[in-house]
This record gives sequence, structure tokens and C-alpha cells, in this order.
Amino acid sequence: MAKKKEPKKTNNKKTKIALDAMGGDHAPEEIVKGAVEAEKEGELEIVLVGPEDRLEKELEKCGYTGNKITIADASEVIEMGDSPVWAIKNKRDSSIVVGIDLLKNKEASAFVSAGNTGAVVTAATLTLGKKKGVHRPALGAVFPFPAGPILCLDIGANAECKPEMLVQFAHMGSIYMEKIFKIEHPRVALLSNGEEESKGSPPVQKAHKLLKKAKINFIGNVEGRDLSKGVADVLVTDGFTGNVLLKTGEGLGEMLLHTLWEAVDGNPKLNEAVNVLGPVLNSVIGTLDYTGYGGAVLLGVEGVVVVAHGRSNFKAIENAVLKAKRVMEFGAVEAIRG
Amino acid sequence: MAKKKEPKKTNNKKTKIALDAMGGDHAPEEIVKGAVEAEKEGELEIVLVGPEDRLEKELEKCGYTGNKITIADASEVIEMGDSPVWAIKNKRDSSIVVGIDLLKNKEASAFVSAGNTGAVVTAATLTLGKKKGVHRPALGAVFPFPAGPILCLDIGANAECKPEMLVQFAHMGSIYMEKIFKIEHPRVALLSNGEEESKGSPPVQKAHKLLKKAKINFIGNVEGRDLSKGVADVLVTDGFTGNVLLKTGEGLGEMLLHTLWEAVDGNPKLNEAVNVLGPVLNSVIGTLDYTGYGGAVLLGVEGVVVVAHGRSNFKAIENAVLKAKRVMEFGAVEAIRG
Repeated sequence: MAKKKEPKKTNNKKTKIALDAMGGDHAPEEIVKGAVEAEKEGELEIVLVGPEDRLEKELEKCGYTGNKITIADASEVIEMGDSPVWAIKNKRDSSIVVGIDLLKNKEASAFVSAGNTGAVVTAATLTLGKKKGVHRPALGAVFPFPAGPILCLDIGANAECKPEMLVQFAHMGSIYMEKIFKIEHPRVALLSNGEEESKGSPPVQKAHKLLKKAKINFIGNVEGRDLSKGVADVLVTDGFTGNVLLKTGEGLGEMLLHTLWEAVDGNPKLNEAVNVLGPVLNSVIGTLDYTGYGGAVLLGVEGVVVVAHGRSNFKAIENAVLKAKRVMEFGAVEAIRG
Repeated sequence: MAKKKEPKKTNNKKTKIALDAMGGDHAPEEIVKGAVEAEKEGELEIVLVGPEDRLEKELEKCGYTGNKITIADASEVIEMGDSPVWAIKNKRDSSIVVGIDLLKNKEASAFVSAGNTGAVVTAATLTLGKKKGVHRPALGAVFPFPAGPILCLDIGANAECKPEMLVQFAHMGSIYMEKIFKIEHPRVALLSNGEEESKGSPPVQKAHKLLKKAKINFIGNVEGRDLSKGVADVLVTDGFTGNVLLKTGEGLGEMLLHTLWEAVDGNPKLNEAVNVLGPVLNSVIGTLDYTGYGGAVLLGVEGVVVVAHGRSNFKAIENAVLKAKRVMEFGAVEAIRG
């Protein structure tokens, strides 16, 4: 089992975030760098979870000399391809298992990871437990569109969803947007392939019927093209479709940037135009950029868990840590009931 | 029943396209205008299907004086909200039913509609019949990404798909890309929420297993973000997810344009930059613009049927008609076997 560097119990009211230093494509370098940046930003402490020696070296490389970032030793790493259930059972000294344990034991008040999403969801569900009445937790990501933010859930915790699960996501999403964005009666929409109630796969059609009766502000079906138009505050979908949606947006944003850079390369006139348009392009493309999302929040478990993108750079990690802090401060997870 | 203005049988080898003049949000004005534009483009004849008096007036408004655009009278219109099966049964003199009949009777060699997608698919399936061995036809749309075109299917004919249907879509898509884009052994990918075989909903996981054994060039799962990268020639997915994908791309393209125009409005410097970058921005945003797709081809029925976007303007209709012509010329639909 893990040897914790800081065995003393911390005050639960203090913002102390456990950060999986070994999760994601750019771990541990970018994770540690992100922790150092996040610590500069605000009143918080960070516990890096991973191999002590290696993380100490990384902190040194960053020139970190403060006392707000500490290390909880964990010798194993759950790989992206590992089966979640197998990994949780067999890699008990992994950064994910140790990190979630810190949360369970109230040695940390939130957990952030860019590692194997399935493993984080499974460990959180089994170790922290689900909120009373919640069947399955869901991952919610907020897209910061110029027309208004929209929380999309589930974006990847459940590849297949029963209609009743979608209704529960709608409830959880409503509470989250109320707490975090102070929106009264958030407008909840169901993602479908047409606005009419008759559109959608059979589970989506059934979810529509149930949502109409639910005690939320359900506004009906919306299509993918309405997402960015500020028509809803919460978008409910299954984890498969939500994940495709998220990654398609990401890919299109990248394509746009790639094509622009390729065209302006060596063309001073175009280059100048891009520079002039920079802020405008950034405001649009930034919406599709996962580094700005600050990760997805796992709704429906007894604790604050944020899943960052597997390709997170230090900026994405910094934002994910700050998001975890905000979620805690606003009590968005505590307020959720199944 | 419909009174056809041109009762004589046309030579089936000649390109004569039946066009639903009453389908879509901007019918019949934009449809007729699109027909006039398409007729200028190439060697083809067009039969506009809809109320004769009204369409004659529209042709007059366009100043059309040629003899390559004729009218087949149809007094009824299937609305976007009509149930497809009900509408096909009860609106026998609708532009969709009459248009598909023209195709069935070899009075036209292709049918194009921007109307109720479900009604077009149902009418085509019931009246023209399915290709031998095909369980369910699928709608395929080609995204013209700079890194290479990719055919995405199904984009909306079947909201729920069994694994075996996805495998059949893969076969049909392969043949289409071979014929239209002259690609040998097109690379076929399955859309999922992760590259690993274990990712996806249970039907997607099963489809993956079946696709590995199929006689096609299956390259495995791809995620939404890889779409634009030229990693595959054919992308297989169910009609629900495909539709969400298509419309999300559309919405993001629109958002980008909207934000740009809003920012440059009244700002000469930004305006100039946008003008300089015009061609580059167009090449990217155009990829997401449904008017350029030329509509989706219905694969798996005995005839060339193209479904254009419900919001089609004349340009989209023109492109859809020209796409139908191209599909016919390359024999892409004839070559398909179940």
C-alpha cells in the first residue's frame, strides 16, 4: 500500500487537492508543471500522487521551493489500455487508487486525474460510493460558448445509458449549473437527431417522455447544431454520443488551427492578418480547446473528482485543479441527490 | 394520382433528375433556382416535382426559357413533422411519392429531395426496393476535409443499428468510395469513444469484432477528433450518432462565422484581415458547410436517391443535383451489393 508523505489529517475545510501525477500522455512533467502554476493562482494545497523520487525531481526542475505542494507516494501506474476493474483490483499502489483513497480518508478534498477515465470512474464509484439514489455517475463538461456555457453530460462514463439514467443526469446537471453558474431553473435539453419528440433512438424517445414529467425545466430535444447557440444550460446524452460530440469539436478546432498555420507559414501578409484576428479566433477556437475546459466533473459520487483530458498539457492541468477548487467552493457536488 | 407533364418514356441512359420542388425550408423558391443553376452546369435534364402552376411561376421568376427543365405535377406536400409511413400511405400525390415513382418507372434516373428525410428513405425503400441482401439502406455524406474526403454513414436513416447493419454499411461505403473517388481498398473505420477494441457501446464492440472478419480494409476504431485527419476513407456509425456528428460540425462552423462577422463589423482593420484570410477560412469552414456537401446519398436501394439538407439554399440544391449526376455516371449505386 501507499506510503503517504503527509500522514497527518488535514482540515477538510481547507482546499487540498490530490493530483494524479502519473495520468495522461504528458505525465509527470506537464502535471507537475500544472500543479506549480495552479498553486500560484490561489489559496490551495496540492498533493501530487506518484513515485516520490521522480516527483521530487520534477518539482526541482520546476524550481518549486514552496511548501503547499507535497507528495503522496504511489509506485504503480494504471495505463490507458488497462481494464478499469482489473486495474483497480490489481494495482492498489497506483496513483489513481492512492489518490482516491486520500479523498476517502479526508486527507484531500478533491481528486484530479488525466489518467484512464474508466479507472478513475470505477475507483471513485467503488471507493467513495455513489450519492444516495444515483444509479450511475456521469461525467459533465462545460463548453464555454460565447452565447453562454452549456454543461454536457455524460461525456464518457457510460457508453450505454438506459432512459432512467438520462433523466438522472438531467437532475444532476441542473443542480450543477444552479450552483456553479447561479442559473435559476436551468434549461435542460435532450440531444437528438431532430427536435420532434418522435426523433431519436428508442432509449432517447423514452427518455424524452420521462423528462417531460420530471421536476426540471425540460425544454425538449436539441440537435448538435444548436449546441453553441445558447438554447440550453444542460445537454443530456449518453456517454458514447457525448464523447463523440466532445472529440469532434476538438478535432474541428485543431483542423482549423492547423489549416490556418499551414497557410500563413511563410506568407507575411496572411501572418499579419492572423495576428490581427488573433483574439477573435482564440475566442472561438478556445471554446473547442480541451485545455480550457478544465476537465469534466464526475457527478453522482460522494466526493469532488475531476477528469482531465488524456492529452492535457500543464495549462489543462492548471485549469482542472482550479475547476476542482471552484466545484468545492460552490458545493456543487454536495448538493447533488439522486 | 399525379398527372405527369411528360408522359413519354425517357431514355434511361440520359441524365434526367427528378427534383422534389416542395422539400425543405426554402421550397419552392430556392429549389427551382437551384435547378436552373444546375442545368447551366452540365448535360442534364431536370423534372421539378410539385404543383404545376406554382412551379411554372417560379421558373418564370428565374427567367428560365430553356427546355431541359420540365414539371411533373404533384399537389400534396409531406411536411417535416409528418410520420414517414403515414405520409407515404396517405399523401400519394405528394412530391416525394410522385418523384420516387418517376424513378421507379424509369422516367427519371435519379431523385433529389431536401424534404422529410424519413419519408424519402421510406418511399425509396418501399417503392424502389432494397438491393439484394441489404437489410437497411444508409445515408452517406462525404466530408471534403483538406486531408482527404471521408464518407460518413449512416448519417440519419437508422436511429438504432444492429452490429450486422454497421458491417453492411462498411461494405456499401467501401464500394462507394472505390467508385466515386477511385480509392483502391478504402480504409474503413468504426466511430467509437476510444481506439481500443474494448471501447464503445455493446453494439459497437460487437460490430468491431465482425468488421475484423469482413472482407474490407478495416483499420479499427477512430474517435471524433481524427475525422478530419485523413486517417480513413469510410467512417461507419449508427444514424443517431452520425447525425449528431454532422450537425455538430455544422453548428460549430456557423458559430465560427457568426463570431467572426460580429467582431469585424465596423472594424476596418479586422475586416481587412478577414478579407485577406478569406480563401483560407473558406477552405476550412466550407468543409463544415452543408451547402457544399451536395447532400447525402441513400445507399442500399435500387436507384440513385440524394437527400439534401432541409435548410438547403439554391447552391446546396445545385450541388445535390450535380452529385446525383456524378453518382449515376460512376455507377456507384449500381455496384452496391448487400
